[in-house]
Amino acid sequence: MELVYKGKTKDVYKLEDGNVLLTFKDDVTGEDGVFDPGANTVGLTIEGAGQSGLRMTKFFFEKLADKKIPTHYIDADIENATMTVKPAMIFGKGLEVICRFRAVGSFLRRYGAYCEEGQPLDAFVEVTIKDDDRNDPPITKDALAQLGILTEDEYVVLEKLTKEISIVVKEELAKKGLELYDIKLEFGRDPEGNIMLIDEISGGNMRVYKDGVYVAPLDLEKLMLA
Amino acid sequence: MELVYKGKTKDVYKLEDGNVLLTFKDDVTGEDGVFDPGANTVGLTIEGAGQSGLRMTKFFFEKLADKKIPTHYIDADIENATMTVKPAMIFGKGLEVICRFRAVGSFLRRYGAYCEEGQPLDAFVEVTIKDDDRNDPPITKDALAQLGILTEDEYVVLEKLTKEISIVVKEELAKKGLELYDIKLEFGRDPEGNIMLIDEISGGNMRVYKDGVYVAPLDLEKLMLA
Repeated sequence: MELVYKGKTKDVYKLEDGNVLLTFKDDVTGEDGVFDPGANTVGLTIEGAGQSGLRMTKFFFEKLADKKIPTHYIDADIENATMTVKPAMIFGKGLEVICRFRAVGSFLRRYGAYCEEGQPLDAFVEVTIKDDDRNDPPITKDALAQLGILTEDEYVVLEKLTKEISIVVKEELAKKGLELYDIKLEFGRDPEGNIMLIDEISGGNMRVYKDGVYVAPLDLEKLMLA
Repeated sequence: MELVYKGKTKDVYKLEDGNVLLTFKDDVTGEDGVFDPGANTVGLTIEGAGQSGLRMTKFFFEKLADKKIPTHYIDADIENATMTVKPAMIFGKGLEVICRFRAVGSFLRRYGAYCEEGQPLDAFVEVTIKDDDRNDPPITKDALAQLGILTEDEYVVLEKLTKEISIVVKEELAKKGLELYDIKLEFGRDPEGNIMLIDEISGGNMRVYKDGVYVAPLDLEKLMLA
């Protein structure tokens, strides 16, 4: 089994059958020891965070499979904190696709002149490029096409899938009295070139609130899957 | 005549007939004494810069009038460095619309992982919001609609006008052996609600090169209008 990439919160291995193994680590993103799903650095290590994130990811990817939404998920081994997935080609050097239901985080930092903190947004989708050196700049549909990262038709698919997936997650959370403020997704092309959801869906890539109070990833997993 | 706004490079007065008078100042944007059309601060004062910018603006707005492209321009008084224009409602707190023919400036700073400096771009249009405190963040068509700044239909008009105007400017410059790399335009609604070009078109809001060497605004005006 060949290590192909060491990520901030996951490592990626190539399996002999052509599939890919992701190992979920106990590192979470943040700054100065405080968790922040939008941060570019590992802020802290929490024992059990990898397994917890994987349990959430398995839960949501299986919900998406029920709804025939294309993802890279094959299966998960909770004990070893590994997930087997289909191989994927990412877009350019990687994109993050964000769906926002309330104005917080980088949206508020950018557009605070035009919105209030926490103001409702209508499943608003935006894309940022993964580029730590340039602080993950936002990018438009037109710029993605201009730079050859994503065609306009692919953008339409990406946006539609993002809204569908985010609404599935929002509804599952709502069943437990939790509110999704925003979520960050990643997509890639499967070996046939079709767009599918990749990476993970866990507390580490979403902001969830209960009665107006932020719920940290490990608490979220307990509330959701207890 | 009532002063309604003191800008970085122009002051704005309301005239009794309902029109607006813009006075072109000798201040130009930049940082640390170096001109930068993308900067948010007045970097230096150059004697004659106001009149020079107005001569260029008069030249280009009259070209646009010949082509029936809607602008706020009525007439210009070069001696007094003033321009009379129609009143305009700006979008939100003001937008800047950029048309790019080569990858330089903030585009390169944001997307340098995907392009080379000076790489040709296909009349690429993007919008930033005027917000000095937040460094004029870029904004998508979807976010403009989400925040109620511009409808999707208005965006289509804005983008089309931006390309038309920028190509007129590019072609006029090309007649003198000059190449337009990028240009920053501003738009507003006229009293009937139609979108029109406002502000100015001068060396101060474009990057122009001759044989690969940047041409400063005052030199540009001499090359263009001599």
